[in-house]
Amino acid sequence: MASNYLAKSNTSEIPSATISRLVIYLRILEELANNDIREISSEKLATLAQGSAFQIRKDLAYFGTFGTRGAGYTVPTLLRELRRILGLTRQWNVVIIGMGRLGQALADYPRFVHYNYHLSAAVDINPELVNKEFSGLKVEDIGDLSKIIKERMVDIGFLTVPQKSAQEAADALIQAGIKGILNFSPSIITVPDNIHVETVDFLAGLKRISYYIK
Amino acid sequence: MASNYLAKSNTSEIPSATISRLVIYLRILEELANNDIREISSEKLATLAQGSAFQIRKDLAYFGTFGTRGAGYTVPTLLRELRRILGLTRQWNVVIIGMGRLGQALADYPRFVHYNYHLSAAVDINPELVNKEFSGLKVEDIGDLSKIIKERMVDIGFLTVPQKSAQEAADALIQAGIKGILNFSPSIITVPDNIHVETVDFLAGLKRISYYIK
Repeated sequence: MASNYLAKSNTSEIPSATISRLVIYLRILEELANNDIREISSEKLATLAQGSAFQIRKDLAYFGTFGTRGAGYTVPTLLRELRRILGLTRQWNVVIIGMGRLGQALADYPRFVHYNYHLSAAVDINPELVNKEFSGLKVEDIGDLSKIIKERMVDIGFLTVPQKSAQEAADALIQAGIKGILNFSPSIITVPDNIHVETVDFLAGLKRISYYIK
Repeated sequence: MASNYLAKSNTSEIPSATISRLVIYLRILEELANNDIREISSEKLATLAQGSAFQIRKDLAYFGTFGTRGAGYTVPTLLRELRRILGLTRQWNVVIIGMGRLGQALADYPRFVHYNYHLSAAVDINPELVNKEFSGLKVEDIGDLSKIIKERMVDIGFLTVPQKSAQEAADALIQAGIKGILNFSPSIITVPDNIHVETVDFLAGLKRISYYIK
């Protein structure tokens, strides 16, 4: 079964689910920090994360010792450590491949900069889009993708092409040296083991909604 | 702290995390079905879902008895049951509020129909967008939102307005009788307890990528 989704397995010692939970803890801690809360008990953090204090300790233990048992966590400290663990302390250069409506919407998304994601380039195959500018980002020809990625040291590709072109576009990104792909297409794409793909699944949240309002 | 995210708590007996996992199981089973696989052991399903066979049994036990201990699951049967549990066997009517680039991209997203989500209407405040058509969906005036929602029995709103208008648009949806909101804006919106909000967070997947490729 050649499918990135089914082929995904725990290649490292740290479970993928732990990384997903770290992202959730980070988001909660950022909101606490925005509300000027500096301390949080492990129980309260667990409630907010819809998990257990034991789970949080276990997740964090992969990376060191944080907080004091019984006393909880210092928000700014844990926030800083989570950012470091998740690799959010350096700049990541991003190329958007596919500058249709979704690519254009992403070029305008305000929060990437906050997390050190830098939109380095945007490419498309459509000559009518090439040289147009969206939110300050000029669309370049997809034929220059490889050169762009190498010269601007692009790390991550946003895949926003139509479904039928998704695999081809992913292959082009990988061939040019991209190591991470954020896949906005509903297609499942197949990639080598050393490439990390995350899929933005609009439908997962939507299915949860139908459960809750049905 | 008036924030939908932090205020979220387990109001029902079934954990929110269970519902999220059911969505994952559903996705895996659909892919198995697409590959004509009719039987799966609980261990194999657990591996694909990056969880444990015990967890799957526990999640499903909230809704009845499925599969045979030791023998695993029949794919089409479990698929049908999960669809029923998640409320995916009826049609859900959707309004898109905000027909900028993201709204336009969503109007063109091919997979909503597959899950019985019907795009009933699209509204915007911008007179230059009103009466334009995107992927067969005609943009209507936001002033008619309440009438549209009631007349077309709209269940769910996609919130794709700019960040600064997100709360106001959410309030308008709720006032018109919407029970579920899929929030594409980076804003945290505050809603009453009887309204269910899911946020599509582009950044969660992106943070996972930076962890894995750093």
